Amino acid sequence: MALPDKVAMSAAEVQAFIEQVFEQATHIRIEETAPGFSRCRLPFDTRHLRPGGTISGPSMFQLADCGLYAMILSTLGPIALAVTTNLNINFLRKPAPRDLIAECRALKFGRRLVIGEVSLFSADDPELVAHATGTYSIPPG
Amino acid sequence: MALPDKVAMSAAEVQAFIEQVFEQATHIRIEETAPGFSRCRLPFDTRHLRPGGTISGPSMFQLADCGLYAMILSTLGPIALAVTTNLNINFLRKPAPRDLIAECRALKFGRRLVIGEVSLFSADDPELVAHATGTYSIPPG
Amino acid sequence: MALPDKVAMSAAEVQAFIEQVFEQATHIRIEETAPGFSRCRLPFDTRHLRPGGTISGPSMFQLADCGLYAMILSTLGPIALAVTTNLNINFLRKPAPRDLIAECRALKFGRRLVIGEVSLFSADDPELVAHATGTYSIPPG
Amino acid sequence: MALPDKVAMSAAEVQAFIEQVFEQATHIRIEETAPGFSRCRLPFDTRHLRPGGTISGPSMFQLADCGLYAMILSTLGPIALAVTTNLNINFLRKPAPRDLIAECRALKFGRRLVIGEVSLFSADDPELVAHATGTYSIPPG
Repeated sequence: MALPDKVAMSAAEVQAFIEQVFEQATHIRIEETAPGFSRCRLPFDTRHLRPGGTISGPSMFQLADCGLYAMILSTLGPIALAVTTNLNINFLRKPAPRDLIAECRALKFGRRLVIGEVSLFSADDPELVAHATGTYSIPPG
Repeated sequence: MALPDKVAMSAAEVQAFIEQVFEQATHIRIEETAPGFSRCRLPFDTRHLRPGGTISGPSMFQLADCGLYAMILSTLGPIALAVTTNLNINFLRKPAPRDLIAECRALKFGRRLVIGEVSLFSADDPELVAHATGTYSIPPG
Repeated sequence: MALPDKVAMSAAEVQAFIEQVFEQATHIRIEETAPGFSRCRLPFDTRHLRPGGTISGPSMFQLADCGLYAMILSTLGPIALAVTTNLNINFLRKPAPRDLIAECRALKFGRRLVIGEVSLFSADDPELVAHATGTYSIPPG
Repeated sequence: MALPDKVAMSAAEVQAFIEQVFEQATHIRIEETAPGFSRCRLPFDTRHLRPGGTISGPSMFQLADCGLYAMILSTLGPIALAVTTNLNINFLRKPAPRDLIAECRALKFGRRLVIGEVSLFSADDPELVAHATGTYSIPPG
């Protein structure tokens, strides 16, 4: 399946949809959407700290998972929920105590499966802090 | 490295250590520890719900990651923090709205790297809801 | 989807099917099949050696992938080919210069996706040398 | 650890080193090396075919693993062997019956662990056919 030419939902529309259906992720900001792409931000908050003053692994996992979900919504629109079937995350270095940014891209956009990758980095720092790939099952239309 | 014969920290000691150093995970209960093993419980709480009334992926990730960390503490004692370098999780079926249990076992216990696996299931139901493997880097002594 | 009560193909039938359709894997022996299970053997052969005299990573990958495919055939019968969409493998210790055994189990057997795990060990040695999980897409019937 | 400014081994030097120590991979061509980078080629050969006339998963795994190893040699030189501890591969689409190219990049280059990613595509076709990430343990100097 080729990516569509136009985005199906704006960043604001994806944000509103996620706030409605996924209460746990409402602190994540959807900053940009495009077909097969999203960029999301986890605002810095001491609740996400782990020992050593850095952002916790589960918070990074949540940002990666939410960002891939936003990428799918960007591309397909507000369809029935995609389901995460696999997520693999490599933690590369300690994130700074700053906002965390996720750039999410589709690697494959099939009718039944979407596979995407996520690059996570601290705001204003190009070095990756984590990298994830995820597989999502798209329910039959 | 062979596993030691005796557990280095009891479940209560691991619980106290985690509560002290890792505030975000204090709702997780450490139920049993043994060399190369831990069993942990995420008490059911509506905060962990995702759309459809089930426990969210990030909550399952957190339970798996915390459980593997507890397994390492059980085996090595309260050493400097082990660091998650990779976590791969397969989501198998929707968990019931019940407590979630993680059984964590060492696959390899090296001096520099520990690799473990986690079986996640709903309390009182033998069917797996998720399965994870993780790699942890042990800081030089 | 629950596993069927009876195996769909015997080990000899799976072996014959794989030899017919997958020439590259004909050196792998299918030893046992059951619904959601297979056990396979890679006979020791110096072609699979890597530096240090041990079995190479790609040979272990191939045994894991072929074993999961055999597990799916055991359960579903000689259907159109399942396609590997993800395989994650952890290498735990150097295998001995002996036959390598793969025990493969279904973690989830859905209509569209099968997720399985593989334990790899040297013949006559219970210690794991590698562990893999894989996701397979089942083509629509 | 930052990447060095200069490459430690040329493509030809990496090729010669791999041919000497890793007989199983001698059909893979090392085309380009740079600090934290390698590009490798699997020449098309019917031995790598799987049912349907496409390149097999184990051949793609081998190219990814060999390419990451070449990337480490490019950066560190002919040191004692790095050991693959984890490799996660997503298969995205069927490769064409053509040469397969792997572009390998370091995501993290630590003293003890190197994590890299691999983009696999058919020669002269920009679409990804597979994507892998791998973790390598560097033996103490």
